[in-house]
Amino acid sequence: MPSEAATRSITLTSFDGGARTERVDVVAVEEPLEIRVGGRSVAVVMRTPGHDRELAAGFLVTEGMLRTRAEVLDMVYCGEIEPEGATNGPRENVLDVILAPGVTVDWARLTRNVFTSSSCGICSKATIAAVRAQFPAIAACAPVRREVVAVLPERLRAAQAGFAASGGSHASALFDAEGRLAVVREDVGRHNALDKVIGHAFFAETLPMAGSVLLVSGRVSFELVQKALAAGIPCVAAISAPTSAAVEFARASGQTLVGFLRGERMNVYAGTLAV
Amino acid sequence: MPSEAATRSITLTSFDGGARTERVDVVAVEEPLEIRVGGRSVAVVMRTPGHDRELAAGFLVTEGMLRTRAEVLDMVYCGEIEPEGATNGPRENVLDVILAPGVTVDWARLTRNVFTSSSCGICSKATIAAVRAQFPAIAACAPVRREVVAVLPERLRAAQAGFAASGGSHASALFDAEGRLAVVREDVGRHNALDKVIGHAFFAETLPMAGSVLLVSGRVSFELVQKALAAGIPCVAAISAPTSAAVEFARASGQTLVGFLRGERMNVYAGTLAV
Repeated sequence: MPSEAATRSITLTSFDGGARTERVDVVAVEEPLEIRVGGRSVAVVMRTPGHDRELAAGFLVTEGMLRTRAEVLDMVYCGEIEPEGATNGPRENVLDVILAPGVTVDWARLTRNVFTSSSCGICSKATIAAVRAQFPAIAACAPVRREVVAVLPERLRAAQAGFAASGGSHASALFDAEGRLAVVREDVGRHNALDKVIGHAFFAETLPMAGSVLLVSGRVSFELVQKALAAGIPCVAAISAPTSAAVEFARASGQTLVGFLRGERMNVYAGTLAV
Repeated sequence: MPSEAATRSITLTSFDGGARTERVDVVAVEEPLEIRVGGRSVAVVMRTPGHDRELAAGFLVTEGMLRTRAEVLDMVYCGEIEPEGATNGPRENVLDVILAPGVTVDWARLTRNVFTSSSCGICSKATIAAVRAQFPAIAACAPVRREVVAVLPERLRAAQAGFAASGGSHASALFDAEGRLAVVREDVGRHNALDKVIGHAFFAETLPMAGSVLLVSGRVSFELVQKALAAGIPCVAAISAPTSAAVEFARASGQTLVGFLRGERMNVYAGTLAV
């Protein structure tokens, strides 16, 4: 199904100085997904199609709207075929989450909404405090071992070897405390890749994910560390740099944050590793 | 002023195998900015502080809420000093846009809001159509010359040489059709860097920016091409890959889209260059 492919072929004109070539290459697919709950729109996210139910579940978990699989009866595409969709095939870009009988969601918890109530001048505090108040800090637990963290990039690369040329996607992978891969997801949006990983855990009923380690392929911002906390992930490692807000949030939440992870070399910005 | 710095010093623990070092390094600053219009919250964006008025103006232009500088009377921080802010200094994280007398904004134009009215199954079309209906396609004009595009990355690097170590920020730079740099901005968010560039043009009253070329430092997604259209930018070039939605949107909007720009080597995904 075309809309499920992570890459799409397109024609382009390639220049090398004055030499001009027409050729076909692949680009990472980016399409909107509208997430609804009980028929009501929650968000439109630009994502790479595939694992959409995980994406919706992970998104709603990290927004504080869902907690356990039992709350969800089903997730269904409002799938219609576009009249002129012959070239692109069926579009599955609207997903409706049907709640189990008696379950209601707290619409006020949508943290992506505008903080109309935040006091003037304390927006930063309000934002971080709002997120932290919603999700408990990580409980004291045995720190992950440095030797385990060191091998994660290699294991991510091995897991991705089977993927199609990703054309510049971000990856998010979850490992247990011994470095065994649980799940890896790719997406044009780094937050989507993480939402899919968390959604996978939601359906596997392994939330909160105590004792797990998350590896993200690029840089790590506030949003990723916040989503990790929402899933109870105590340790986040990134191949590249963290932002100031990511470091501050991880420290306040009791999370371990590793950046610039290049095998045996790594920086620990928050929390500790067992050495 | 600490909150205006693009980087912040933090302490970290660095490992190289078993060798452990405590040291100080810098990370890119990421803090929330709440954008208000007439006291009403529009959005909270995680951004690198600095050029906040440009960011707010660019954001509101690309959301279709502002068009010309004359519509804005002033932009003021709701700046309060946090009681416990001694370590971080004054926070300027809420910016209120005060409209000129008689000016009103169309709140319904906030495209980031949920598309509650989009028909089932045509979300993709609704999204792209909504953006395109809001901003005119690029009028036919002389294409930018290939030799001009080829030198832009080098000129961006030269312009960035004076910047502090950015710790992993994204850059967005605007050039004229002869490759002369108009403005460059950096931010932890690539969309913020572009909003700041567009905001700069807003205050310089050079919108829409016919005859200009935008260069972005990383990949180029739907959102960036859409923002470029909102500012009337006819040509977008990126150092790295475009997504499928970026290509499709640029083609539909009459924009030229260049990817994998590495000096003389480049790919043209939409539109044309003069060769």
